[in-house]
This record gives sequence, C-alpha cells and structure tokens, in this order.
Amino acid sequence: MFRNSLIFLIICSAVNGASIDYLNRRQAVIDAEKKQATGGRVFLTAKESKADEILVVLKNQAVADGILNPDSYAPGMHFFEAKPLIDQSKVFRILKAMPKGSVLHLHTAAAVSSEWIIKNLTYRPEAKICKADGRFYLTARAFKLCSEDSLNSIQALRTENGTSALFDRWLESLINLKYNSLDTIHVDINTVWVEFEQMFSTIKEFLLYKPFFEAFCSRMLQEFFEDNVFYIELRTTFSKLYDSSGKSYEDFEVAKILTNVVDTFKEAHPEFIGVKVIYSKHRETGNGTAYDLLMTYTNLTTQFPNLVVGFDLVGQEDINFPLNVFLKDLHEFQKSSLYFFHAGETNGYGSDADLNLIDAVLLNSRRIGHGYSLYKHPVLWRAVKSKSIPLEVCPISNQVLRLVNDLRNHPAVFYVSESVPIVISCDDPGFWDSKGVSYDFYYALMSIAPKTAGIGFLKQIVWDSVKYSALTSNERTSFSRILQARWDVFLDDLISGNLSSL
Amino acid sequence: MFRNSLIFLIICSAVNGASIDYLNRRQAVIDAEKKQATGGRVFLTAKESKADEILVVLKNQAVADGILNPDSYAPGMHFFEAKPLIDQSKVFRILKAMPKGSVLHLHTAAAVSSEWIIKNLTYRPEAKICKADGRFYLTARAFKLCSEDSLNSIQALRTENGTSALFDRWLESLINLKYNSLDTIHVDINTVWVEFEQMFSTIKEFLLYKPFFEAFCSRMLQEFFEDNVFYIELRTTFSKLYDSSGKSYEDFEVAKILTNVVDTFKEAHPEFIGVKVIYSKHRETGNGTAYDLLMTYTNLTTQFPNLVVGFDLVGQEDINFPLNVFLKDLHEFQKSSLYFFHAGETNGYGSDADLNLIDAVLLNSRRIGHGYSLYKHPVLWRAVKSKSIPLEVCPISNQVLRLVNDLRNHPAVFYVSESVPIVISCDDPGFWDSKGVSYDFYYALMSIAPKTAGIGFLKQIVWDSVKYSALTSNERTSFSRILQARWDVFLDDLISGNLSSL
Repeated sequence: MFRNSLIFLIICSAVNGASIDYLNRRQAVIDAEKKQATGGRVFLTAKESKADEILVVLKNQAVADGILNPDSYAPGMHFFEAKPLIDQSKVFRILKAMPKGSVLHLHTAAAVSSEWIIKNLTYRPEAKICKADGRFYLTARAFKLCSEDSLNSIQALRTENGTSALFDRWLESLINLKYNSLDTIHVDINTVWVEFEQMFSTIKEFLLYKPFFEAFCSRMLQEFFEDNVFYIELRTTFSKLYDSSGKSYEDFEVAKILTNVVDTFKEAHPEFIGVKVIYSKHRETGNGTAYDLLMTYTNLTTQFPNLVVGFDLVGQEDINFPLNVFLKDLHEFQKSSLYFFHAGETNGYGSDADLNLIDAVLLNSRRIGHGYSLYKHPVLWRAVKSKSIPLEVCPISNQVLRLVNDLRNHPAVFYVSESVPIVISCDDPGFWDSKGVSYDFYYALMSIAPKTAGIGFLKQIVWDSVKYSALTSNERTSFSRILQARWDVFLDDLISGNLSSL
Repeated sequence: MFRNSLIFLIICSAVNGASIDYLNRRQAVIDAEKKQATGGRVFLTAKESKADEILVVLKNQAVADGILNPDSYAPGMHFFEAKPLIDQSKVFRILKAMPKGSVLHLHTAAAVSSEWIIKNLTYRPEAKICKADGRFYLTARAFKLCSEDSLNSIQALRTENGTSALFDRWLESLINLKYNSLDTIHVDINTVWVEFEQMFSTIKEFLLYKPFFEAFCSRMLQEFFEDNVFYIELRTTFSKLYDSSGKSYEDFEVAKILTNVVDTFKEAHPEFIGVKVIYSKHRETGNGTAYDLLMTYTNLTTQFPNLVVGFDLVGQEDINFPLNVFLKDLHEFQKSSLYFFHAGETNGYGSDADLNLIDAVLLNSRRIGHGYSLYKHPVLWRAVKSKSIPLEVCPISNQVLRLVNDLRNHPAVFYVSESVPIVISCDDPGFWDSKGVSYDFYYALMSIAPKTAGIGFLKQIVWDSVKYSALTSNERTSFSRILQARWDVFLDDLISGNLSSL
C-alpha cells in the first residue's frame, strides 16, 4: 500500500514537477480531511469496498457532467425541477434500493404521498370538502370552521366536474406545494410557510376520522417500508379522533389505535421494527406555558412507555415563541432523553429562532431537529459534537421551505466535514412529493457529502440512524441484525449491476 | 457592571422561571461566541460604543422587520432586486459614509460603473463598435476580430437611432449583467460566467486605447475615493496600449502610465494612498505552463517594486486549469508574499477548483481570493486562521455569479463566527452596478455578521483591510493616520444623526 502511494507520488512528481515533499504534504491534507469527515473512519469490508468503487464512479461521472452542464445538474437544482432528473439517475436507483435504517424526523400529517390520499381517501363516500375564509378543508364531518350545510361530497363534486383528472389535480394542489409556481408562493420563507401550515389545516379534520387515520397510518408504514426504511420516529399530537357512529377517542385511545396499525403492519412485514412517537405541539401554544402539554406527555409516556418517547415543539421558529419563553416549564420537567427539540431552522444569526439552539443544548435535547444555523455557533457545534447530539438534517424540507436554494450551500456540508453527527430525514415528504426518504439521501450524497464520499459515508449515516434512535438496547440489537442482512443483499445487488442498470 | 448583570439575571429569572445558574450558562455561551467572532475582541472607545448603539438599533429594526416581511428584506434578496431597498436604508447611508480602508480584490476592466463608461467614453468621437460572431465589441481601432470596415462610429449610430436613452441602455447592457433577466442567463454558473467573461472581451479593446485607459483609471480612483476607499490592490495584466498616432506601449510603459494617473489623483486628493498591482492572467493560459507569466511578473516587479507586488491566476475555476497543473512553475518561483491566489470560488466539494485551496495554502498564498469553499476543509481553515491568511470575500460577486442566492448562506458567516480573517471586497462592481464597495459592506454587516455585530465588527474588517494589504510598513502607518482621522469624523457624524437621516 505504502509502496503504491510512493509510486503514485513519484509519477505525480514527474508530471507536475513539484517535489515529492510537496505532493506528500498535499496528499496528507486530503487524507486527514477525508478521515475527519462523516464516514471517514468507517471500516469497509472487501464487499463494501467493491460497492464503493462502483458507486463512486457513477457519482463522479454525474459530478463531472455537472461541472460542464450545471443547467441540468440535479444536485444543484431545486427539487421540484430536479425530480425527473433524479428519477433517471443511477445513483438514485441505488439509494432507493439501499436499506436506510430509520427515519427520525417526520410529521404524521405530511408523511404520506398526496397522490395516495387523493386516489384513495378522497374516493371514499365519507370524504367531504368545504370552503371557509377563502381556504379549502378536507373533512368527514362538520366542524368549527365548516357548518353542515357548507360541506360538499367530494364524490359528487368529482362527478359534476367533467374531468376527474383535472379535479383530482386541483384537489392534490391543496396538500402539495409542488403545484405552486416557484415564482409566486416560493418567493420567501413566510409566504411558503403560510401555504405549508395551511396544508396541515386542510388535511387535519380528514385524519381525525378514525377510518381515514388508520388507512393513512398504514399507508405511511407501507411507503416507508417500500423505500427500505424499517423504523420511524413520528412527531405527532394524538388529537382526538371520531368515527361514523359519533364516538370520540381520547389521546390514550389514539395511541392504542396507532399501536394496532403498527402491530398489524409488523405481522405482515416481520422486518419492520416499528414506530415511536415524539409528542409534539405547535410552539404558538397559548399563554407562554408548556405545562399542560408536558403533563399530557407525562401521562402518555407513563401509559405507553415503549411508544411515547419524547417531547418537542413544532412550527416556524422565526415568527413563533422561542424555547426561551417556556423555560420555566421545560426546565422543571427536564430529565435525560426527554427532549427532541426543533432548533435553529432559520437563516437568522443571533435571532430568537437561532438562539433556540442554546436552549436545546442546555436542556439536554437528545437530538436536534434541523439545527440548520448551528454552524454559526462555535461553542455550540463543538458541544453538540462532543456530546454526540445528532442533527436531524432534512435537505429537501430546508430547500422547499426557503432556507437554501442550492443544497451544496446547506450547512450540513460543514457538519459532514467535521463529523458533527447527523441523520438524514424527510420532514414532510407528502407535501412536496418526495415519497420516503431516498430523495433526501440523494441530496445528502450528491450535494452535501464530498466528491469521494460513497459507501463509507452512507454506512455511517444509516447505522447512526439506528444508534441515535430512541429504541431500547434490545430493539437496536434486533434492528441491527435485520439491517445487516438487508445491507448484504443490497451490496450484492449493487456489485452485480442489478441496481444501476436503467 | 457585574452588579448590573446580576440584576438582569434575577429579572430574567423571575420572568422565565429558570434558575440563575441556567441563565448564567446561557449568557456565557452568548458571550463566548460573541468574543470568538470577528470584531469580538476589538476595543471600543466611548465614542465608538455610542456609535455602535445607534447603528445596532437601526440594524435590529431592519432585522425585526425582515422576520415579519421577508419579501422586502434586502439582506435576504438578490442584489438586482434589493438595490433600490438598500439605497433607501439608513444602515446603507452609514456604511457609504464610513471610511472603508482598502479594496484588495478588484479587476481593472470591471472596476468602473458602466453608466460612466457609456455617458463618457462612448460619447467620445474615437468610440466605435463592431459585431463579430454574434457578439459586440467596443473599440477605438480595427483589431483581430473586427476589420476596419466592420467598425461603426458609436456617435453616428446614436444619432441614427431615434432615442439616445434607449440606445445607451442597450449599449450599457453589453457591459452590465443587471440588464439580463434573472430567469435567463442567471440560471446557472456556467451560463452567467459566459456572459460575464464576454463583458471583459467586449470592453477590452476600448481600454487598450491610451486616452480611454487613462480616463477609465482616473475615474476608478474617483469612484472608490468617493465611496471612502483610500487604497486599492488591482488584479490587472498591463496589456499593450496604443494611441491615436499608432504608437504602442509595452507593459512597463503601461505601468508608468498607471503610476502617472495615480500620482495625478493623489496630488488632487492627498488622503488617497494609492494603488498596487497583483499581476494576473487568465488560468486558461496556454500549455499548462505559467513560466512566461512568472518571468514577466519578475521583470515588472524588479522595475516597479512599489507597484507590482504579487501574482495570481484568474477566471472561472470550475472549468479552467487548477493550480495543480502549474505546480512546477509556481513551486519554482515561490517566495514569501508572492502569491495572492483565487481559490475555492466554487460550489464543488473535492473538485479540482475546490482543491485549489490546498495549493493556495501550500504555496503560501498571502491572501486567498474568495476562498468560498474553505469551510468544507477542517485542516485548511484552521491553517488559514492560524497563519492569518485573510480571505477576500466578495459577497455580491458570489451571488451574481451564482454560487449562492441568499447571502445569509454565504460561508463567510462561518468565517466570521470563527474569526477566520476576512476582508470585504467587490471584485467587478462595474459589471453589476454596485459602484464602490459599500453595497458589499451592507451585505457583510446585514447578511453575514451576527445580529449584534456593529461598529466592533466594522472596525475590525476596515483595519484588517490595511493590515492585510501589500503596503509597506511606512505606508501602513500613514494610511492608519488618515483612516483614524476619517473614522473620527465618521463617528461624530453618525452620533450627531447626520448620516441616518434620510
């Protein structure tokens, strides 16, 4: 090995005319930085090394093409424009087939592809729609915003409408940002967030109807399992459900309903590990107190210790209450591994949203949701690294929600360069048509990781998604076994060329 | 002081309900990071503290507005759309009036506002235009691309044309990117670079005509002096000039002509320090050798030691030769303070352009042009910091040339957080209508620096622009004296409210 490097250096020396000492020092920098980056110290088996070679060749072909043709280089483009190109790429085919471990940052209502919701739930006879204050709402009953006589049967509307394809497209545009022009609502962060949060409102009542909730959750598991994800941690609220008989279900009953859906799915798919919940409410929560929420969380986790594993506050950080406002309650309830805070999902530098990062760290957040602005904080990022607090990085989310246009500028580039621990997640794939988490992995590998990053990088972040989950030690052990078996099959398929042939 | 902090903490404690210990630790993080950032250890006089208070209030009003109204928040917008908003802002008025020290990264042909060129040079009777291969060229003579009979007098064309305003606008569009739609040529880095480099070609011949060259250089000094810049380091080539008698002027004569222009300007403006030159050629330079260029440089610096002070290679790094290719020659000529390399002006991570950073550091570059991708290199950015190699950060250039859309994502944010030394410069202001360097300072203060950064941050980067210049020790001393006097006047004006009243 040393001999080969030396020969290589001598050849370079002849070509470049620089001294061997110079080239040695040059290579030493490259090697040291490679080692320091995410995946840089991962051991690769012979099989993994072979797979790595294949993957890196494909990747570097794409990178080289991109330097000459940046106008069609997906890793530098907005997802809405890049998606058809990504779908055609060999690297994406490989990442789709790759077992991706866990998805640790996912909001329930936005977890399922909008296409499935339209083609399935809205075709059921109970599906209704109403209009209030210029906005549309999907529902199966009258509710606060929509009186009984304002409800329209979706089936009836679809029949009245000449072309159901056009009607369905319009319906889907209510819950998918891709139908909005990049030049209109995608102009700034607040405008896109208004549309984005409206989509949660549009679909909320729909998912409070128990039969829809069950079908939706079941579909969620299927979409992620098909994307080779075996375990999910959901940010969710357990809002009260109802059924057609008028019966309503309190939060602890909703927890049971979710458990049943997951158990049924696991019976049919023994490799699927399961779901845990990070109990999460909107940070605009009233009166500056989080006490009631934390009490509800405490009751839920006491009853469902294996399901309800953490607490978070969600919603746009820039314009809603910072963690700082709830310090008294958050401090009082603080205990190890309780919090999984969103923090620093902002372009601010020194703003309240940015300073949420300090409180997330001081309140011992077990992971940090996004941590987009962490790289601006020299004390904090070093603390996060040394305390092994992983950042839940959601590339497409940060792009669609207007933090960054070109994902090669995503701060995760820095986290990767320094091995600040990260997991890759998808946040709200249903709202931007990125079913599963493979598209986010594509950007992670192609836009965020260095040119040489391949299987070692992927192995690190896939296994870290197990390591940094809220699974118990036993659960992690069986998960690792399943993942390893799938990983071996994946490597075989990659090496045999099954994955990259289009 | 300590007493006040304590009272503050007790008040906070009552408000937030968190323990004093918690709030102490929170504040300690904020203080430590503030101290670690650019300007964090700068001493402020009483007057500076007062000025800082005023500036930071104005700045934070703008930041707060921006959180609520991001659609009209200039620091988050593209310069072409933000410029009218910046022009109206009080912070910009202050920065325009502020003495900004040196501009250390500037390409001659793009240094002067296009408006002046159109309104002055093109109105002279010698001004001609020709078309070749679908592109237009400004010239005062026939040359390789344009034969005598393909030349048109601009004056004649303007007269033929009905409206000279419209004609002049068209003429200006040949040398200013702002006239291109953001949706067409501004779509990707290569497309905009083709237009950008074409502008150098369009104006090149014009500036080889001695009378135009002299007028242009004189105007350059005036525009920067009016923008409160007192010293310039130019990237330039000393291409052969000619005059109306047909006489031609070799590079050493051009150096004399430039010296004369500068001396004349200095006589009229005794506060102006002068100009030095970093001899710079395009990196596509033939046959992979830089030997001839380095020999020319050596001859020039021997004849003009006080004018010609360094060497660089310029042009789009992604698609042209990396430094690596010229290692033999660069290594052979290497001596202390010779190189001022462009490096890492790219979105790549591990690409040749990105790896130029390694060679820039190993070849002891005295400063680094851009260093945009340096933050991806944990070994290199620490080396750059500890060796005090400043990065020449040109925010608007990186935005217009499509490295980054929202300048709050510019890597300089990281450099500021870690006090990696930077100077702020403007690169090619004439080609994007950002006369002088004040607009770049605006983005530096508003988009790149933290919310609390004010006079301390500005003082640091202004004085660093003297410290990191290629001036001799004596020159630096007299420069500092002039700068200090101007700085005091500026502070007085700021405190008296003369600057911020619109």
